[in-house]
Amino acid sequence: MKVDGTAYRSLWWDDKAQALQIIDQRWLPHDFRIEQLDSMDDFTRAIKDMHVRGAPLIGATAAYGMALAMRMDPADATLNSAFDLLNETRPTAINLRWALERCRNHLAPLPLAQRATAALLLAHEIADEDVEINRRIGLHGLELIREIAAKKTDGSPVRLLTHCNAGWLATVDWGTATSPMYQAHDAGIPLHVWVDETRPRNQGALTSWELGSHGISHSYITDNAGGHFMQHGLVDMVITGTDRTTRQGDVCNKIGTYLKALAAQDNNVPFYVALPSPTIDWSVCDGVAEIPIEDRDGREVSHVMGTSESGEIASVRVTPQATPVANPAFDVTPNRLVTGLITERGVCDASAAGLAELFPDMAAATTKA
Amino acid sequence: MKVDGTAYRSLWWDDKAQALQIIDQRWLPHDFRIEQLDSMDDFTRAIKDMHVRGAPLIGATAAYGMALAMRMDPADATLNSAFDLLNETRPTAINLRWALERCRNHLAPLPLAQRATAALLLAHEIADEDVEINRRIGLHGLELIREIAAKKTDGSPVRLLTHCNAGWLATVDWGTATSPMYQAHDAGIPLHVWVDETRPRNQGALTSWELGSHGISHSYITDNAGGHFMQHGLVDMVITGTDRTTRQGDVCNKIGTYLKALAAQDNNVPFYVALPSPTIDWSVCDGVAEIPIEDRDGREVSHVMGTSESGEIASVRVTPQATPVANPAFDVTPNRLVTGLITERGVCDASAAGLAELFPDMAAATTKA
Repeated sequence: MKVDGTAYRSLWWDDKAQALQIIDQRWLPHDFRIEQLDSMDDFTRAIKDMHVRGAPLIGATAAYGMALAMRMDPADATLNSAFDLLNETRPTAINLRWALERCRNHLAPLPLAQRATAALLLAHEIADEDVEINRRIGLHGLELIREIAAKKTDGSPVRLLTHCNAGWLATVDWGTATSPMYQAHDAGIPLHVWVDETRPRNQGALTSWELGSHGISHSYITDNAGGHFMQHGLVDMVITGTDRTTRQGDVCNKIGTYLKALAAQDNNVPFYVALPSPTIDWSVCDGVAEIPIEDRDGREVSHVMGTSESGEIASVRVTPQATPVANPAFDVTPNRLVTGLITERGVCDASAAGLAELFPDMAAATTKA
Repeated sequence: MKVDGTAYRSLWWDDKAQALQIIDQRWLPHDFRIEQLDSMDDFTRAIKDMHVRGAPLIGATAAYGMALAMRMDPADATLNSAFDLLNETRPTAINLRWALERCRNHLAPLPLAQRATAALLLAHEIADEDVEINRRIGLHGLELIREIAAKKTDGSPVRLLTHCNAGWLATVDWGTATSPMYQAHDAGIPLHVWVDETRPRNQGALTSWELGSHGISHSYITDNAGGHFMQHGLVDMVITGTDRTTRQGDVCNKIGTYLKALAAQDNNVPFYVALPSPTIDWSVCDGVAEIPIEDRDGREVSHVMGTSESGEIASVRVTPQATPVANPAFDVTPNRLVTGLITERGVCDASAAGLAELFPDMAAATTKA
């Protein structure tokens, strides 16, 4: 999407430098820095230290890491060591392993002389696939926004609310929850987006940076405020992303999503979740009962990072010293609170039947397993 | 309540110094500082610059300000000028004007020679009344907690959740929502309190400081986390305070309260609101429709204050520069989501009938007006 009028992806291959360019996200939203990755050390550090973040983006970055390794030395030993080095960076990210296995399976049978070119083409393919999935999510979501806009005879903006950053920074482009927003904006539909801050990590600042950079009207609000805006008719639709969706359509997403879904239901505001089909976990049915929720480091809550008055990136402790902190990272929104799921194949009910109708191939494979 | 084993009120008169001692709350939870107020300048600055905060505490502080003025000069002109000086400090605080009018009405008819003593006695009376109201709220709330504890045959703690700081720091002692917690703790009932951070001003840090100082087990959590804990059976009861309660029992409290009430209802968790009867606004019925919500300075959201690594109190900006911010300060929880109101006269339904039964005198006065 656009940053100050220039179109960017969150990564791109630089043919001239024979290296990958990424946006070093550690400094966002406070600073926009581009980093060139041209050694395996660069790649492993960029993933491990979260210069790049978001499962789809990590997968694509790793694929380019494999391409770089093959260009330096296409031997089997290098193929395997690059796989291991990259796979160790974020051991729990599913897309990382998926992308690396796809690369190795594709490259291993090839003659050495073809591997460098094939690896780069595959990395391009993985990145482009991600872009295409998200673009399609956006087009399906666009239709929902268009319906709301059509009812506004005064031309007032469609007011959307989102939680966390399911944006283009977490993917290669478009994002998931943000893709319908970019599509609608680019189609000339007036929008205003309420951006939840999303404590403890304040990903709302990333979403605000994205939307602001692309020219979409928005307001940053505390996580406490959304219910009040819905009560007063100031939200037409909620769209969030999801980290994991169960086969019955329960949604495991950033902590606090459930509260917004409750408020949406209480005020008859449609609550949609945007997702690429790889995030559907067909092995899980009841999200609240079955999905274990990660309790993360309390320092994420007790300390807040930002820009100091002197312009430096700094951290302050907001709690009394030694205050105990609990920090569950996700919650589950039961399907009864979800109006619909926006996928690359279209919009469906958040239910086993809805998902099975849209993804009969995947649903059938699970039933057999 | 206790701070490191010593019992404190949020203010106390020092007979020897003939001055008021307050806890300078600007530094909490990062530093515990006591300040002596012994001039009118001290008093006006302490209220205006929020060394003291919370409507009941502001009222009591102003009454002691009148006492100081009368000790220096009991003349009518001083009585009136002290009234004006103190009343201008926080023009919208209802308790401030109420306390000052009570002082002036009581003192004006008295001979000059009696005013200094009478003013100090009245300030003591106003402070003690506040303590007594809150103590009674605590005793009524204690019974609710005792009932929950009685069902826990394993002796596990009663898990409470609270939002914002309706604590002893906002009153003279006990607090409102916290009073049942202190009473229960002091009665030997094991407790654990989930303390909502309460963005944007993080009053959860004050509540954590209070509870920690008194020795009550608690965890500081983001505003996003409470719904998840309720889903998993980790909250037995919610108790919040209120800034204004309508005659039908709608509750206008710190932004985000409504979201917790929704989650409580969705998970069959009792949701109680603790309030002194002066916060009932008998002139208002439908809180969502009738109460205007203050939109406060966006800097409260975009900037966060805390302790820096070097131990200084500092502020960081968490949003991208120039990001638009919306900052509604309160929301309204409709009475249908409130299990009951805990008042100094007992617990009642959050309804017109419930309040009228407990406060027939006040309800009748409104009907006539």
